[in-house]
Amino acid sequence: MSAPFEAFLSTPQALAAFDAPAVVQAMLDVEAALVRAQAAVGLVPLPAAQAIAGVCKAELFDVPALVAASGRAGSLAIPLVRRLTETVALFDAEAAGYVHWGSTSQDVIDTALALLQRRALAVLDADLARLAAALLAVAHTHEEAPLLARTLLQPAQVISWGHKAVGWIAPLLRTRSALRVAAEAALQLQLGGAVGTRAMLGPEADAIARHMAEALGLRLPPDAWHTQRDEAARLYAELGVLCGVLGKLARDLSLLAQAEVGEAAEPSGSGRGGSSAMPHKRNPVASMVALAAALRAPQRVAALLAAMVQEHERGLGNWQSELAEAAGLFQSAMGAAAALAEAVEGLQVDPARMRRNIDALHGLVYAEGASMALAAAGLGKSGAHALLERLSRHTAATGEPLAEGLRAALQADAVLRERLGPAFAAERLDATLEALFDARRAAEPAIARARPRLAALQREARALEESPPPWPAPAGAG
Amino acid sequence: MSAPFEAFLSTPQALAAFDAPAVVQAMLDVEAALVRAQAAVGLVPLPAAQAIAGVCKAELFDVPALVAASGRAGSLAIPLVRRLTETVALFDAEAAGYVHWGSTSQDVIDTALALLQRRALAVLDADLARLAAALLAVAHTHEEAPLLARTLLQPAQVISWGHKAVGWIAPLLRTRSALRVAAEAALQLQLGGAVGTRAMLGPEADAIARHMAEALGLRLPPDAWHTQRDEAARLYAELGVLCGVLGKLARDLSLLAQAEVGEAAEPSGSGRGGSSAMPHKRNPVASMVALAAALRAPQRVAALLAAMVQEHERGLGNWQSELAEAAGLFQSAMGAAAALAEAVEGLQVDPARMRRNIDALHGLVYAEGASMALAAAGLGKSGAHALLERLSRHTAATGEPLAEGLRAALQADAVLRERLGPAFAAERLDATLEALFDARRAAEPAIARARPRLAALQREARALEESPPPWPAPAGAG
Amino acid sequence: MSAPFEAFLSTPQALAAFDAPAVVQAMLDVEAALVRAQAAVGLVPLPAAQAIAGVCKAELFDVPALVAASGRAGSLAIPLVRRLTETVALFDAEAAGYVHWGSTSQDVIDTALALLQRRALAVLDADLARLAAALLAVAHTHEEAPLLARTLLQPAQVISWGHKAVGWIAPLLRTRSALRVAAEAALQLQLGGAVGTRAMLGPEADAIARHMAEALGLRLPPDAWHTQRDEAARLYAELGVLCGVLGKLARDLSLLAQAEVGEAAEPSGSGRGGSSAMPHKRNPVASMVALAAALRAPQRVAALLAAMVQEHERGLGNWQSELAEAAGLFQSAMGAAAALAEAVEGLQVDPARMRRNIDALHGLVYAEGASMALAAAGLGKSGAHALLERLSRHTAATGEPLAEGLRAALQADAVLRERLGPAFAAERLDATLEALFDARRAAEPAIARARPRLAALQREARALEESPPPWPAPAGAG
Amino acid sequence: MSAPFEAFLSTPQALAAFDAPAVVQAMLDVEAALVRAQAAVGLVPLPAAQAIAGVCKAELFDVPALVAASGRAGSLAIPLVRRLTETVALFDAEAAGYVHWGSTSQDVIDTALALLQRRALAVLDADLARLAAALLAVAHTHEEAPLLARTLLQPAQVISWGHKAVGWIAPLLRTRSALRVAAEAALQLQLGGAVGTRAMLGPEADAIARHMAEALGLRLPPDAWHTQRDEAARLYAELGVLCGVLGKLARDLSLLAQAEVGEAAEPSGSGRGGSSAMPHKRNPVASMVALAAALRAPQRVAALLAAMVQEHERGLGNWQSELAEAAGLFQSAMGAAAALAEAVEGLQVDPARMRRNIDALHGLVYAEGASMALAAAGLGKSGAHALLERLSRHTAATGEPLAEGLRAALQADAVLRERLGPAFAAERLDATLEALFDARRAAEPAIARARPRLAALQREARALEESPPPWPAPAGAG
Repeated sequence: MSAPFEAFLSTPQALAAFDAPAVVQAMLDVEAALVRAQAAVGLVPLPAAQAIAGVCKAELFDVPALVAASGRAGSLAIPLVRRLTETVALFDAEAAGYVHWGSTSQDVIDTALALLQRRALAVLDADLARLAAALLAVAHTHEEAPLLARTLLQPAQVISWGHKAVGWIAPLLRTRSALRVAAEAALQLQLGGAVGTRAMLGPEADAIARHMAEALGLRLPPDAWHTQRDEAARLYAELGVLCGVLGKLARDLSLLAQAEVGEAAEPSGSGRGGSSAMPHKRNPVASMVALAAALRAPQRVAALLAAMVQEHERGLGNWQSELAEAAGLFQSAMGAAAALAEAVEGLQVDPARMRRNIDALHGLVYAEGASMALAAAGLGKSGAHALLERLSRHTAATGEPLAEGLRAALQADAVLRERLGPAFAAERLDATLEALFDARRAAEPAIARARPRLAALQREARALEESPPPWPAPAGAG
Repeated sequence: MSAPFEAFLSTPQALAAFDAPAVVQAMLDVEAALVRAQAAVGLVPLPAAQAIAGVCKAELFDVPALVAASGRAGSLAIPLVRRLTETVALFDAEAAGYVHWGSTSQDVIDTALALLQRRALAVLDADLARLAAALLAVAHTHEEAPLLARTLLQPAQVISWGHKAVGWIAPLLRTRSALRVAAEAALQLQLGGAVGTRAMLGPEADAIARHMAEALGLRLPPDAWHTQRDEAARLYAELGVLCGVLGKLARDLSLLAQAEVGEAAEPSGSGRGGSSAMPHKRNPVASMVALAAALRAPQRVAALLAAMVQEHERGLGNWQSELAEAAGLFQSAMGAAAALAEAVEGLQVDPARMRRNIDALHGLVYAEGASMALAAAGLGKSGAHALLERLSRHTAATGEPLAEGLRAALQADAVLRERLGPAFAAERLDATLEALFDARRAAEPAIARARPRLAALQREARALEESPPPWPAPAGAG
Repeated sequence: MSAPFEAFLSTPQALAAFDAPAVVQAMLDVEAALVRAQAAVGLVPLPAAQAIAGVCKAELFDVPALVAASGRAGSLAIPLVRRLTETVALFDAEAAGYVHWGSTSQDVIDTALALLQRRALAVLDADLARLAAALLAVAHTHEEAPLLARTLLQPAQVISWGHKAVGWIAPLLRTRSALRVAAEAALQLQLGGAVGTRAMLGPEADAIARHMAEALGLRLPPDAWHTQRDEAARLYAELGVLCGVLGKLARDLSLLAQAEVGEAAEPSGSGRGGSSAMPHKRNPVASMVALAAALRAPQRVAALLAAMVQEHERGLGNWQSELAEAAGLFQSAMGAAAALAEAVEGLQVDPARMRRNIDALHGLVYAEGASMALAAAGLGKSGAHALLERLSRHTAATGEPLAEGLRAALQADAVLRERLGPAFAAERLDATLEALFDARRAAEPAIARARPRLAALQREARALEESPPPWPAPAGAG
Repeated sequence: MSAPFEAFLSTPQALAAFDAPAVVQAMLDVEAALVRAQAAVGLVPLPAAQAIAGVCKAELFDVPALVAASGRAGSLAIPLVRRLTETVALFDAEAAGYVHWGSTSQDVIDTALALLQRRALAVLDADLARLAAALLAVAHTHEEAPLLARTLLQPAQVISWGHKAVGWIAPLLRTRSALRVAAEAALQLQLGGAVGTRAMLGPEADAIARHMAEALGLRLPPDAWHTQRDEAARLYAELGVLCGVLGKLARDLSLLAQAEVGEAAEPSGSGRGGSSAMPHKRNPVASMVALAAALRAPQRVAALLAAMVQEHERGLGNWQSELAEAAGLFQSAMGAAAALAEAVEGLQVDPARMRRNIDALHGLVYAEGASMALAAAGLGKSGAHALLERLSRHTAATGEPLAEGLRAALQADAVLRERLGPAFAAERLDATLEALFDARRAAEPAIARARPRLAALQREARALEESPPPWPAPAGAG
């Protein structure tokens, strides 16, 4: 059973990925791989290796007792190795002498964590793929629908739904790629022995490491990295970037879902986002989960970066912090990705409402376009900006459409019309104004820009699907 | 079973304080208190209230299933209220209609958290008392032993063990006090209903709140604080300060415990701080736990401060983050306090080694004292500083005692001796130098300063023991 | 000239409060106070003290050169003391020997920082008073206007503008108080000499400290606090809490100011929140400044808490970090308070728009009220909740007013009407529904609750104004 | 003049890199590049472009006044564009109309920041090269000197100086590489206009962007990245990783430099690391600077990650925070790299002291080696571990050499000697013990492992020197 207030911000799968049985099993996998590798190079008799590997099953151990004992020992590896040795000794006293031979606690824990993180990354990667696919799909449905762009939470100009979606998808694909690159470096074997020299493993030390890395499917690094955590830190940082990317998407979605905006909404459904008090509530719970991840992940990354300053050949308090913080960071990221994938797959988009929200602004969002057009037509940039600023103030105060104000201003000033040339001549003024104050036309640059980008992103997403990730297919993810 | 990498940085008691059964029971306690208060003012029939309160026992519920359902609902209160209602209905269909009446999820969760935090604070407070008592005891044992002061990790001057201890104890007592003050404000009832107005509780709303606060032993605040988290934040911040205070102590202890320094050591003992590889190891595991807390707590506090920016009448992602982060912060602080209390109770202090470490510096640490004495005797500050700086460089380079260098310099310069007056006259030079280069004498100001301070701190500690804390005596802490 | 990207997130006054001339002057003030205190107890001849104090003026020094030299020295005090000594020597060679006597770099810097922080706190306190007064004023203007409460960024129920304001004002006043309490402890003299024992100040050391503390208007602590930073940390944490409180207000204001909501707006004015591209823009720049502070302050606090783990008698890298981070934290908080005070003083509130936003929800926000009424009238809680949930879904999907749906449901079910009693009888149904679906009536509990609270907060604000703060009146703040 | 408490934690060059004149000049460079690109595609008359570009010189502007005005405007670009327009108009009224045409504040600021960061990265990269070269040099000097490995701040086993250095150098080179990769992505043009569509730049918008990117030497991204900050965040995170790597080195150096350890020391020199009070002080100021960076950088990264959650098409408070935090992060990293490069170039290493520190441990650090040897010789792992643990306790308590204890134990137990075979036979026991308890021999695995690694790292460093970085040669860095 997991921490009660983590559960609703993550997924059962993510919580299970780093729970005590999973950690213990991964540590036992490392012990088994170690002794098998030692047998392979002749350092340990094969039967002893088999005897040890044969009991490297978490279900044979009292996992809560091991966790409880880790407090006093200062490391989960100490009680685990002791119990493993005792368990082996029940069957094969000689083999017991080979348990954990030449290794150190941190070797086992760091390597086990790499195994767990690899599995978690496979799940996360799959959810990012789902999310990207869902976003691409939802981008296409209303690709050309005009949509209000908002800067500093104020109406700016008109863009398109497809353009908005490009801004969500491109960073997501970049981050999915970057996560794989970071994982490729970070998912590595730790095998240094007590002080990183593999001294106690004898002359076959490097061969043993090679065997282990192959068997476990982890990268074989040139050095032990007991207190050199940059490659791990890079992976953690990338998870932090991912939470930022997901948080940005969630912030946008939750702002669009406000009743007063109403342009998009998370799917509702039985048990989803209700309220214990208010029958009408439909809370954006996926955005909530992603925003929580985006709030918490930066601090987790900070703790993990702060933990890099590890003393000499093994840190005091910092490496141990890393173990605790890393799991939480993964769980946040996994929770956010899964929640948003599900939400975007059922996202409800309302292009009519988008249009109504634009129309409700009385043409103010066309002010820059009108200003540029007048400037180009001969009024000059500052003159045009000043005119539109004045008219905008009037519109904002009275609600009178900006187009009407501009029409009146132009009609009242024949000299100005003259300077501005044919487009603003009396007989074409209506058409010109209509063009300047039309949402679909204002959205055109965004639409034109989004079209090839969405196609390119679709190709990128496909290429990512087809490129092999730095982990085996997740057996348990099906 | 707790997160495997939290367990060895906390205590079983701390982990249990915020685990799922504890959270669910606290929430049920709140539901029971609510309906009892409603019965007291006549809003709910007494039998219905009794029927509800009677099933408010966590063991009647499938806690893991509730936690699992909280993910979809976005809150643990939703499935809990549903299951509680169903459970009550099994016995008393009418009573079921009164479950959670007029309350909201956040009311139940925030109040439940206050109950859990109160219990945690009582345990923490007791461990801080133990730690302060142990520090006071260990301060007295070698109170007057001269000890090297170190600034920027370099030898500075001579202080005393008692003076060093004052620097550990005074902030600890201040923080224990401050924690109680912060707790007094933060341990408060939350009862606002959906939007903080208690609207659905009817005209007796405030009487209900008063009854609840009394029954639960929590402060009754004038407003709901659904999105006004300053009082909670102050408590979290104080826990962060505490972890800093404990971390400073742990840093000092672990530096003193280095083999090359060897002035203090954590107790060893069966299963404590051993190594899976190295038979001779005695790791300072209490310092490790406290340093880990000091590394992680600042980031938890940052997350909790960042979570204060909550939207309107209920936050989206931030309040939920607070729930998750707060528990972890408590567990870190409790782990650190308990570990250090145990370690300091068995701390091994080596005054002989302190003296040897001073002596090994060839008198360099007396340079400022000698400089001040020469300056006062007539050489002037800059002249004295320059002379001692030159002689210190020579001592550092050659290992020749600084006292010898100074003696030679003074003997070689009769004019200087003349200026310096009787203390530096040839016949008294030996005695003067001996006094200037004596550890016990150099420690005198520290000793004199520490004596009344330790007495005062002893009184403060006793006063704290005798003053009533803002929580009932912890039943389970005995 | 300040860092270019800090300037627009703070105020000129806040930036000047910690700039190099201010820091150097404060350090010189400490040196002057030190030597004057030493003269007062007879340790230094009065003329020498006067000679030193007489040149303790920043304008006599090449401040940029001092700052530049601080890099190599590792401390600003080293070059300052050197230059001060040289400057004194130009006038009075003997006096030069008494400069900085018995003190250490950190004494001067920590005490100087306390002086600067005191001045900054006086400015900040005044801006918090302005902001509280402005909020109280704006609360009263439309105190009873019904307003939509929003939870998880979704419409919840109806509250009142006055109730909303209570939620902004109460934490502000609490934090202003708490800041004063924290300041009272943190604004203290630092005078310990090299290792915190005042050893080099001789037997009059404590008298010197007393004189200094009095002259500088700082608290006299029982111990040096070179590496015991809890009291400073508490002040920093309180600034972090303040930024959270201000950030919450800013988040609410910026959400209310969205064009689609339009219930409140920051004042516009020449040069305020314009856009370089869009003539119609009116950006909420005060909210921007406060949100930036709320984003950055948690991390500053985290850095300052992390910096508490200082080694032995002087930290290596952590104390130095504290100096740099603390100034930035003050500047953020001061910038946010000043910006919001100005913004709220000119806040535009639109009660008509509030009403329209409620009305646009087709009665959904009255669902809980209706549900409670039906439950109380005899339908039972779960039956009522289920009915309203079904009707709410219909309303959300079709836009048909919830009141109409409910009327139809009641009209269609005579048995139900019977059970519900007179209020829902056919002849009174209209009046009952009208009451249940009326904004003003729905706001009543909020209005009733806010009235006494606003009066109490007004009294609290006045009491704060009248209570003496822990600093002298800021001479330069007028 | 820079913030007084930043100066001594950074370098003059780093502070100048982001000061107001540099920022304003970079923004003017962007404005010039924009209008030149517009002229190149025929959008702006060439003379107008020349008129504008001709006044894009920071020295023509009152920079402090611009910075002061940025507060009210909420952006430095607003007053800059206004003053630039006015300045151009003095010479060429028509040209003034083309200033900033079609661009937005954030375009100019983000692109300017990329220019400044590029220059900063070139300086940083050069200092990292210096540091790596210095570490490689110092690694070679005493490459084979035996050195105590320390885990959890306790003696562990014997390694070699060269092995220790590998652990410092490898992450440094990896991070230098990774920084270049991150820079390649992050140093990109921002040109999106008000809402990221380049709508106002007309049909030649993409050609203009291409021209600008080429002229400025920045990457041309496919989309505007106004609120998509992942690529910037990756660069910031990498700077955080770098500070962690440098902090780890600084922590090790400062621990080695403790008087009681004395194995390495930062160079001393005039004005370097002295004390205002203590003539003998030689403070490790480079380590101090790097540790400060490592303490502060994680929080800066956290703020920058938190700032990623930017609303819609331009953030409110978060983007603005990013600008302020990013500069500080660069300055910390640059300060740390420069300080350590200088310190390691003059690092004093004492191999004799290393040996003495090993010898002072009475053979305890050979316990694991002896245990493994006994285990391999037939005693079995747990038997050997138990024996050595018992003997180690005796040695720790009495100071009697572990070798003597082991000799006595073996001599007393003929049965055991028998089991252990020839190496432990009475006649060879001396030689066997000597070999097991010999520092040079114990260091052999470390020495053997370090040799090829140092050679490989030397090659890597050279390859990095020869590979072109993603920035032009820094003109001002010579």
